[in-house]
Amino acid sequence: MKICILTIGNELMSGRTADTNSSFIAREINLQGWQVEAMMSVGDKFDSIKSRLNYLLALTDVVICTGGLGPTADDITTAAIAQAFGLPLYTDETVLQAIKDRFAKYNLRWVENNAKQAMFPQGAEIIANPIGTAAGFALRVKEKLIFVIPGVPYETQRMMPEGVIPILRRYFPQPDQYSAKQTIKTFGLSEAAVDDRLKDIDFAARGVNVGFYPVFPENHVVLISRHKTQEEAQRNLQKTQDEVAVRLQDCIFSYGEKTLEEVIAGLLTEKKLTIAVAESCTGGLITNRLTDVSGSSDYLERGLVTYSNESKISMLGVPAEIIEKHGAVSEETARLMAEGVRKLSGADLGLSSTGIAGPTGGSKEKPVGTVYLALADSKQTVCRHYTFRWDRKRNKHVFSEVALIILKDYLQGKG
Amino acid sequence: MKICILTIGNELMSGRTADTNSSFIAREINLQGWQVEAMMSVGDKFDSIKSRLNYLLALTDVVICTGGLGPTADDITTAAIAQAFGLPLYTDETVLQAIKDRFAKYNLRWVENNAKQAMFPQGAEIIANPIGTAAGFALRVKEKLIFVIPGVPYETQRMMPEGVIPILRRYFPQPDQYSAKQTIKTFGLSEAAVDDRLKDIDFAARGVNVGFYPVFPENHVVLISRHKTQEEAQRNLQKTQDEVAVRLQDCIFSYGEKTLEEVIAGLLTEKKLTIAVAESCTGGLITNRLTDVSGSSDYLERGLVTYSNESKISMLGVPAEIIEKHGAVSEETARLMAEGVRKLSGADLGLSSTGIAGPTGGSKEKPVGTVYLALADSKQTVCRHYTFRWDRKRNKHVFSEVALIILKDYLQGKG
Repeated sequence: MKICILTIGNELMSGRTADTNSSFIAREINLQGWQVEAMMSVGDKFDSIKSRLNYLLALTDVVICTGGLGPTADDITTAAIAQAFGLPLYTDETVLQAIKDRFAKYNLRWVENNAKQAMFPQGAEIIANPIGTAAGFALRVKEKLIFVIPGVPYETQRMMPEGVIPILRRYFPQPDQYSAKQTIKTFGLSEAAVDDRLKDIDFAARGVNVGFYPVFPENHVVLISRHKTQEEAQRNLQKTQDEVAVRLQDCIFSYGEKTLEEVIAGLLTEKKLTIAVAESCTGGLITNRLTDVSGSSDYLERGLVTYSNESKISMLGVPAEIIEKHGAVSEETARLMAEGVRKLSGADLGLSSTGIAGPTGGSKEKPVGTVYLALADSKQTVCRHYTFRWDRKRNKHVFSEVALIILKDYLQGKG
Repeated sequence: MKICILTIGNELMSGRTADTNSSFIAREINLQGWQVEAMMSVGDKFDSIKSRLNYLLALTDVVICTGGLGPTADDITTAAIAQAFGLPLYTDETVLQAIKDRFAKYNLRWVENNAKQAMFPQGAEIIANPIGTAAGFALRVKEKLIFVIPGVPYETQRMMPEGVIPILRRYFPQPDQYSAKQTIKTFGLSEAAVDDRLKDIDFAARGVNVGFYPVFPENHVVLISRHKTQEEAQRNLQKTQDEVAVRLQDCIFSYGEKTLEEVIAGLLTEKKLTIAVAESCTGGLITNRLTDVSGSSDYLERGLVTYSNESKISMLGVPAEIIEKHGAVSEETARLMAEGVRKLSGADLGLSSTGIAGPTGGSKEKPVGTVYLALADSKQTVCRHYTFRWDRKRNKHVFSEVALIILKDYLQGKG
């Protein structure tokens, strides 16, 4: 069973408001094992709404509409839909009373156009709005099913699961397929290279859909398995995931929705280790990412952005001669920064970055994009050296990503 | 002239990715004085793409498509469009070479499926991608105009103004062909409040289009003035900008494209001042943002993320009794952090943050979202206190934004 979504409002056509309802509704639909065939947005115009709705009904059996249910003159969704199918409008006295009660409760002045929100096309099944005055409705016409709910995201997010899904389940008691889903997050391969490594897997034959989602600088692979039973869907998913894992293993950092920062948070917490960071070229980004996880104060002791040579010398104890001889951007400096911040803070681990984010500051020997990343524990320090060629912000981002990958690998004993 | 937008990708149909391209493109179109008739999203399926495209072409003269231009097998937009109009695909050698050069430059391993990104339908006018491998194209078929550009928002946002709009202007020249544009960046007002303050300005009567772009936590206002002569377009723009400025003055931090960080960079450089930062709740984000500007090593001396109380005490010299008595999140601590980092670093200015980003750690007196921000020079320290109610990452972001606004105001003598 396939479903279309129609979001209605002039604010969408002007670009003033980004449509977040469509993706929310699509997620709800996919969770039920159904699929979305198309999403469409249209302005508050009679003819446009009627024409788009008819087009979408021709594509699928169900159209879920949001928006245009307000009390003002520009909200015309209900009237347009009634007109599209030649249905008269009637006033639902129960809904009208509920709206009036709400006005009384919040001491709002009653204006007659609010009564519009109690009008529905004949035959509509009303969908209650638990948090607003705009009730929604379901309408069965020509063997098709139309839903109309408000466009306020907060209200959509209540009325989809509480109102729309139960009615859909009543009309379509047997879902086409049960589904099981897994996200596999990778770093270190281009999207094309991920695809290339997986090209010998016949996903379709397994009843599994595969999607590639680049989220700079990561690439995420999403598997969705569908079957007549939940057990088989889950079994197919697991088998396929295992095959993907064999091919991408060295680049996978997360199975599921966890971010790299959250994976590291889990590992540091599990191992009861603390960390301190000394950053130069990443300018605070590594520490900022570590602190994006709630509870990071349990393992992050401090972070230093030692941008000047003076701060590397005085705070981290990097000898001036080392900087003079090898440069601030060097393996020697990176190692001493990691060791220095570890000692200074008393943390178990010290992580450091020094490099050239660009666009200026590069040389032939050390071009823009050069970075040295070091990780020190009580016994040893590892240092890795890379050259990337993005713009300044992306260089900083990928530097921080590699630093976190080095930390994760260490915590997983892969260092 | 009316335009439709077609965004393509399975990630949209599954709800995994919210479509932000449609609203961006719609704003760009509206700024040019054109209108969007409908927006549609469809999955990566041959028949669906062809059928939706034909439907939208029947509604309007121009369809702008995004997405499905990647190198992997699931990206089929170009092939689907070529098939829809019976056009053969050809390889553009210039584009192919550019992609290969990019791979060589970034030391990426060439995989043959990348060559797919150099294939275009016969008759296509290629639209260069300045920041990626996926070039776009314009195609004139059956008196209609189709654009195809990548779906990566970062790339869409470059290729719309730089590639699509100039071609649209060539096909649809307007009598008022000269335009002048100004971006006005604000912080501190909701989008609705910005709109409300400007509602008495009759933009249309001045030949000026106005667009509102919320870029969390900022709101940007874009004015485009059009006239038969460049001089008059510029004059109308200036007059309108002056009227907008009067109404939003206290909230404007930039006229033009400069970011808040770049505005601050200019001011610090002009005044030959250096700065050091001590962050707690912002976790390195303030320093990270300052270092997003090339050349920031000229004025940023260092940044400390003093996450633990111990680091606040030992590095910044905040007395343990102060933290014990007033708390780490307090005006007293914020002031001493700013003063401490200034003294420690020898910088002219010290900037600090301490607060509760959430979601845990709040109390009745100091709820989640509480932040104290302090700025110290050699003579005095100012401290401001706010409470925001976003999620963790947005709280961190808005905390850093306010810290930078305080710094900017100080540098402009508005402290």
